[in-house]
Amino acid sequence: MNSNIRVVGFDADDTLWDNEIFYKETEQEFCRIMIPFMNTEETSKELFKTEVQNMGLYGYGIKAFSLSLIETAIRISSSEIPASTISKIIELGKAMLRKPVNLINGIEDVLKILQGKYKLIIVTKGDLLDQEKKLVKSGLSGYFHHIEIMSDKKEDNYKSLLNHLDIEASQFIMVGNSLKSDILPVLGLGGYGIYVPSDTTWLYEQIENENIESEKFVKVKSIRDIIEILH
Amino acid sequence: MNSNIRVVGFDADDTLWDNEIFYKETEQEFCRIMIPFMNTEETSKELFKTEVQNMGLYGYGIKAFSLSLIETAIRISSSEIPASTISKIIELGKAMLRKPVNLINGIEDVLKILQGKYKLIIVTKGDLLDQEKKLVKSGLSGYFHHIEIMSDKKEDNYKSLLNHLDIEASQFIMVGNSLKSDILPVLGLGGYGIYVPSDTTWLYEQIENENIESEKFVKVKSIRDIIEILH
Repeated sequence: MNSNIRVVGFDADDTLWDNEIFYKETEQEFCRIMIPFMNTEETSKELFKTEVQNMGLYGYGIKAFSLSLIETAIRISSSEIPASTISKIIELGKAMLRKPVNLINGIEDVLKILQGKYKLIIVTKGDLLDQEKKLVKSGLSGYFHHIEIMSDKKEDNYKSLLNHLDIEASQFIMVGNSLKSDILPVLGLGGYGIYVPSDTTWLYEQIENENIESEKFVKVKSIRDIIEILH
Repeated sequence: MNSNIRVVGFDADDTLWDNEIFYKETEQEFCRIMIPFMNTEETSKELFKTEVQNMGLYGYGIKAFSLSLIETAIRISSSEIPASTISKIIELGKAMLRKPVNLINGIEDVLKILQGKYKLIIVTKGDLLDQEKKLVKSGLSGYFHHIEIMSDKKEDNYKSLLNHLDIEASQFIMVGNSLKSDILPVLGLGGYGIYVPSDTTWLYEQIENENIESEKFVKVKSIRDIIEILH
């Protein structure tokens, strides 16, 4: 790509390690619990509605998700859900926070090869404490110059990051599984993006038009493919 | 104090703006709601127990507090609490996230005087999104070089901060209302601390021995008093 690139930003969830699968599994379990009140498909829709409504107030992460699960359960049961079931929902959230970190296949090889050549950073959103703990559990911290945890991944957030790194957008490339959060805002600022789709993507991160025409953009199948591009 | 000081770190909650008072008010309202199940004093104790138990998993902030309120309500009611009451508790948490920011009296005068003389930063813990929003609402962002939101305020967290700022501990002074979180870890690293006690301090931040003997430490009555020390 561009030989001026100095910093490679990696999204964390579903780029370095599994994440969305745990949300999906928890959602399935939640839908199962709610069957006495509503069918699975409708419950999923109601949950998503709650999450979107709460986004501005709660932001991203498992605690926000847990609170939205409880709120949805109460609403769709017309307050008939027993407190003991809400207890179970709280436990579902806690179980997510305790999950082990499963690395994406090949990521450590990629980081080993790139580490001396670029400044590598993690650029992620979500709960501060949870993301820090996942980084520790992942064993990958040594590869990264630092971890940047943002409240959101919009152009303004990336602009602050570039200021902070004291680099131009054209010296920055972002690697991630969300076009909406990892790629488009960076391209918008004049930076580069490598899109590595994951098997499961949260509805909230999906965009309608996946066709991006830019010489600063490339889509690859596996994280290993970025070596060839950046090497 | 020391003429080598280059960076002044300000704690945010109850140093720049009111915070603990909102937790206390919410706790009182929660205790009132729980009266059918338990007296106020015992409810407060049970809530604190839950918060401490969840600290490692949830960390600080209003979402963590909301989840602990719900968990406590279910436990002390032996799962008898109706879902409609849990709804009210969720709303208490949301109301906290929507609170306006009340600046601590005198803080803006202090920042105006210090701004050209030192690099001023905010060093805080809690929810990322919530703290960023409070900074915007406060109108104080212009005074600060950046905001550092930490998952906790222990020596290791401050060590990373100093590395990041590329300064020695002896060039750093921290201003805050918690001896445990703002002062002791910084003194432990060889930095300076100014303790500005607030009217209400969360039990979790309280320490038994408030007598600190150090020439790098000073306790003042009001935030305005730090001008004389740093000017």
